[in-house]
Amino acid sequence: MNINRQWVLAKRPFGMVDAGNFEYREEPIPEPGDGEVLVRNLYLSFDPTQRGWMEDRESYLPPVGIGEVMRAGSVGQVVESRHADFSSGDLVQTTGGWQDFVIAVPNQGPMGLTKLPPGVTPVMALGILGITGLTAYFGMLDLGLPKAGETVLVSGAAGATGSVAGQIARIKGCRVVGIAGGDEKCAWLREVAQFDDVIDYKKGSVSAGIAETCPDRVDVFFDNVGGDILQAALDHINQKARIVLCGGISGYNATEVQPGPTNLMNLVIMRARMEGFIVLDYMNRVHEAVPELLGWLQSGELIHREDIQEGFENIPNTLNRLFTGQNIGKQLLKLSDPS
Amino acid sequence: MNINRQWVLAKRPFGMVDAGNFEYREEPIPEPGDGEVLVRNLYLSFDPTQRGWMEDRESYLPPVGIGEVMRAGSVGQVVESRHADFSSGDLVQTTGGWQDFVIAVPNQGPMGLTKLPPGVTPVMALGILGITGLTAYFGMLDLGLPKAGETVLVSGAAGATGSVAGQIARIKGCRVVGIAGGDEKCAWLREVAQFDDVIDYKKGSVSAGIAETCPDRVDVFFDNVGGDILQAALDHINQKARIVLCGGISGYNATEVQPGPTNLMNLVIMRARMEGFIVLDYMNRVHEAVPELLGWLQSGELIHREDIQEGFENIPNTLNRLFTGQNIGKQLLKLSDPS
Repeated sequence: MNINRQWVLAKRPFGMVDAGNFEYREEPIPEPGDGEVLVRNLYLSFDPTQRGWMEDRESYLPPVGIGEVMRAGSVGQVVESRHADFSSGDLVQTTGGWQDFVIAVPNQGPMGLTKLPPGVTPVMALGILGITGLTAYFGMLDLGLPKAGETVLVSGAAGATGSVAGQIARIKGCRVVGIAGGDEKCAWLREVAQFDDVIDYKKGSVSAGIAETCPDRVDVFFDNVGGDILQAALDHINQKARIVLCGGISGYNATEVQPGPTNLMNLVIMRARMEGFIVLDYMNRVHEAVPELLGWLQSGELIHREDIQEGFENIPNTLNRLFTGQNIGKQLLKLSDPS
Repeated sequence: MNINRQWVLAKRPFGMVDAGNFEYREEPIPEPGDGEVLVRNLYLSFDPTQRGWMEDRESYLPPVGIGEVMRAGSVGQVVESRHADFSSGDLVQTTGGWQDFVIAVPNQGPMGLTKLPPGVTPVMALGILGITGLTAYFGMLDLGLPKAGETVLVSGAAGATGSVAGQIARIKGCRVVGIAGGDEKCAWLREVAQFDDVIDYKKGSVSAGIAETCPDRVDVFFDNVGGDILQAALDHINQKARIVLCGGISGYNATEVQPGPTNLMNLVIMRARMEGFIVLDYMNRVHEAVPELLGWLQSGELIHREDIQEGFENIPNTLNRLFTGQNIGKQLLKLSDPS
């Protein structure tokens, strides 16, 4: 293979993303310059935040330009290195994008270019020990400040971040309740991820579900969803509650402005806090998180799950799996095994 | 006078409060039991939060019951004491309610019963050194965490709390912009309270006003208003901004559910925080606030203003002055001078 297959952004989305938003392109494999590294992508990461990168609006990263390769986190293998710290064959993490090959440089781009530590697989590097696990770790611990005995509620609980965030709170001694959709996800959360209780948002009122499963109210709400679920949670917060705003997937594909919660005054009445964060701000603290996450993985207290699609042609449709709720755990797509 | 005039809650309000929500009653002056103190109210405090006390819903204090004297903070004078710590003639602060006389006990009720420190007038005790000043002090400093050089935006800026909160931020070296309605309030904020800039919400778009007056975006938003003004402020927050939810006066008299902000995801993008508080939680830290507030008053850095109505018959209508925007600074009603 001496071409670089790419999916470039062709048209900004309105509502759900479909194949028409991207264009397939073939380019020559790029040549690394001095200090650069040529990487072949092995696994691509799919994250709800990618939907935001497709919009032409100010955010924590610039939008992907029309005609540019769609941005995505990735793990790859070094094909050719012109940087002293990298050698051919190294497994690396970078922002590879939706293409076979990428030119990467350390400390450049959202994820820079880093070697996978020994023993860390590509799947772990993109999931439980990567952006997803770090998002759960810092969001839950730094913003959520869970204390043993408290009640922690997680929305999008069967997703990559939510499932880890909930387990971290459980490890810290909290009673953890997850909100997810459908029997399979709820059973997995209860039986495998060991959540204390689960609310199926597809069955009845989430507010009633919270009232029932959180009799002592909610001390920490880790929110990946926003919208009606945030409103329901706000009605059941405890005094001094912490609402960690990780994402708002319910609104990402909306074609109209979505209503905000009408009960924000509960933050005053309950002296509670709502706070947003972006995991990229915590990259200088990764060394705090990874050993602790690894320890929990080794002890079996923390489990992780991935949904791994395959095939370059399936890249655009894989993104939608996040928004249609098809994935349990981390959504990945495998392009190739390491050589 | 040997009767105790009272305004009791007769009917829960729907929308703006009017005279029909209260009933005038005359009762005998109560007799203090052992450990109790009979206080004659001199000044009543009017606060937007009183509107919430009139509703039959869970909050940080139980609702005022139908047929009960309307709850209000007050300064009064001890008429008869059966408590060792109080003597006839003492000036005291308590939750006297809308009546001439009240039986008060230390450490009971929202405000307990405390003697005014020497040199503190009733007006100061209910305003700048009382709940209002303390709300501004702890809300701005503990939650707002203003740093010199930052931009601080205050809504309800000509009100009792907002005007003090803004001045505290200015004293701490911030650039302070106030939002208020009408020429008189805006001129007072600029010229007397020394705000750096002012936005008149009655003249044009608040969002455009914030963009213009806060070119470096908003680091701290001290919000007394909520609604559209909160939405506008959220569009202009800086990274790591702190939104202090002190109140939401725009919604207190609403007869329909008021829409929430549709742009809460800006808290994520800007890694920002929104936090509510109730000043009653800070009563054990009053000793931190009062000396610092007194120092600023003596140096002239901090000014205060009151709107003092008179007459027992005018009590119910005075509450509405807060909601129609008639008051500048602290709203009080004087029943009597100390004897």
